Amino acid sequence: MAKKLAVLGSTGSIGTQTLDVVAGDPDSYEITGLAAGRNIRLLLEQARRFRPKLVSVATRELAEEIRPGLPPGTKAVYGEEGLIEAAAGSGADYAVCALVGSLGLKSTLAAIDAGLSIGLANKESLVAAGHIVTKRARDKGVTIYPIDSEHSAIFQCLNGEDGRAVKRLVITASGGSFRDRTRDELADVTVADALKHPNWSMGAKITIDSATMVNKGLEVIEAHWLFDLPYDRIDVLLHPESIVHSMVEFTDTSVIAQLGNPDMRVPIQYALTYPARKPSPASPLDLAKAGTLHFREMDFERYPCLRLAYEAGRAGGTAPAVFNAANEAAVARFLKGEIPFLAIETIIERMLREHRTIGDPDLETILSVDERTRAEAAVLR
Amino acid sequence: MAKKLAVLGSTGSIGTQTLDVVAGDPDSYEITGLAAGRNIRLLLEQARRFRPKLVSVATRELAEEIRPGLPPGTKAVYGEEGLIEAAAGSGADYAVCALVGSLGLKSTLAAIDAGLSIGLANKESLVAAGHIVTKRARDKGVTIYPIDSEHSAIFQCLNGEDGRAVKRLVITASGGSFRDRTRDELADVTVADALKHPNWSMGAKITIDSATMVNKGLEVIEAHWLFDLPYDRIDVLLHPESIVHSMVEFTDTSVIAQLGNPDMRVPIQYALTYPARKPSPASPLDLAKAGTLHFREMDFERYPCLRLAYEAGRAGGTAPAVFNAANEAAVARFLKGEIPFLAIETIIERMLREHRTIGDPDLETILSVDERTRAEAAVLR
Repeated sequence: MAKKLAVLGSTGSIGTQTLDVVAGDPDSYEITGLAAGRNIRLLLEQARRFRPKLVSVATRELAEEIRPGLPPGTKAVYGEEGLIEAAAGSGADYAVCALVGSLGLKSTLAAIDAGLSIGLANKESLVAAGHIVTKRARDKGVTIYPIDSEHSAIFQCLNGEDGRAVKRLVITASGGSFRDRTRDELADVTVADALKHPNWSMGAKITIDSATMVNKGLEVIEAHWLFDLPYDRIDVLLHPESIVHSMVEFTDTSVIAQLGNPDMRVPIQYALTYPARKPSPASPLDLAKAGTLHFREMDFERYPCLRLAYEAGRAGGTAPAVFNAANEAAVARFLKGEIPFLAIETIIERMLREHRTIGDPDLETILSVDERTRAEAAVLR
Repeated sequence: MAKKLAVLGSTGSIGTQTLDVVAGDPDSYEITGLAAGRNIRLLLEQARRFRPKLVSVATRELAEEIRPGLPPGTKAVYGEEGLIEAAAGSGADYAVCALVGSLGLKSTLAAIDAGLSIGLANKESLVAAGHIVTKRARDKGVTIYPIDSEHSAIFQCLNGEDGRAVKRLVITASGGSFRDRTRDELADVTVADALKHPNWSMGAKITIDSATMVNKGLEVIEAHWLFDLPYDRIDVLLHPESIVHSMVEFTDTSVIAQLGNPDMRVPIQYALTYPARKPSPASPLDLAKAGTLHFREMDFERYPCLRLAYEAGRAGGTAPAVFNAANEAAVARFLKGEIPFLAIETIIERMLREHRTIGDPDLETILSVDERTRAEAAVLR
């Protein structure tokens, strides 16, 4: 039977690649809902191709603009309510949650509440609200399938294994676009420099997060929630080639690793086909051609943002939301040329230091802390 | 409940390490049978420590010699019959089959016929009689757990996976003690040179087999039977560090690999504890310390014995038994200084070329081909 999919964030990088996977195996999927923000041109194309019941856009104006072009049987909705409807009301049994920001979190929760399986690419869901999302999924009997390549790798390495035999997770990190520079050399790097990621072609925000190692910090926090392990059993290892996507070390000293060429369609597809695997258009890994894989100890002096992520994760409560919101505000400022690269970490550190962590926060508290942090970080000097 | 173990070949390298594993977790195991050949001094020590019901030795004289020293309740048996009794008649529910040669094959079959689970380290069982052993195990509902590090790695990588999603197996090969020499430089290597294996400390025969790549060829044939895959889906990749013990590539291009420091206690223990994993005294892998992993295409010109193994495997029937027997005879002659190193491959190639393969042979046919090949290869000039 075809899997009924709602793709939340369908015009973004994960969304479009999800639809690539679906297009490659059309009998296995039916697209019931698509949610995007403002890119209605692409959304319209997608709607015509996949004929969902619902498409959701950011505003009433955009919904009105898109309506005339939609195929018969496709309804346009909008705003937060429309998004929730696309997640929970399109008849989907599986939601790919690839929206960024707090809207992504709310729609993930709506999909969980509706009992859908979740393919999760929205970071806020686990970073800011991991305790709420994982508890709600447990209560609802909903499975969360990771879409990030590192978490998918760990998920694959855990296949058929007993969680009690896990000693630690080892998340690999390429080191980002500045991995060969000293800290002194980072002082005056430009936005253009930062956007040159060595292995993955990604959006601007995540490329910067990769250079600051914030991205890896967020992944550590996500792994903590996804795999229910304390932070001292989640390690990060520098691996410039990004071929080993992550590893699990077991109590018997065996290490199971997942390898592949960097191609997000593989983890996306696995999240959709699990426990089965299906052929992929990704190019097979040729290790002899790769020739050499390097591994280096993570350097927390070189990458203080990773240290801050662990600190925020261990503090728990609202601290990870502050870490994430402060970073987003700081990266936006860096991309606008307002602040130098190294100010990103200074801003995160100051916001964390000034924040008084609230334990076991509810969704409202998280969202208000998130908003306040963004506002403050946007003007911090 | 404690697992009742018969260890066949208890004084050899795999046997002693099996008993190390047992000694480290004594509540989980009961040793019911030990079989050795002529090393009765060590066997006596083992019998006193583990108090099996049966010990088996090569001859009646050795049985008489060992008897007075045995603990009360331990009986000494001997010869082929004694060995079969140790395998099938000691009350074991699991046999570690680590005897070399055709006796190893017969005792493996006896253990299978008695319905025991099998931890398999005897190469002849699958190389010479893979079709018989796997069919008999299937018929009896007996599971064969691989003990070789490469096959254990593949077995671990297949955990929780659907066999239909397997694209190919990738067996890694260190390249052995001569991997950095050209073929010209191999012409006059000495026995002492050949015995210096870069990563594993093993017996003389297997160290030579590693230098000729015969060992990898045998592993390819074993993998064919253990994992039920055709030879064109079993590849060998040079990996000098022997840290990635082997890999499985799936149809979605994901590669799952098992890594670890070279320590046979890990695969031995896994064969015993599967599907669980338990703490091991092996030292954990430190990839940052290892720093670099290298991979190179296998060179069939440089290692013609591997090509011959694939040819023998594809020919099937009695051909793999000839490959194995010719190699054993040739290696024995090299170790005695009778022939140069490169004559090993010449002898294997000639014996294979002169052999007329018999399809679907029974055990008797295999054993007689094995014997005849050894006799001929022992005097071939």
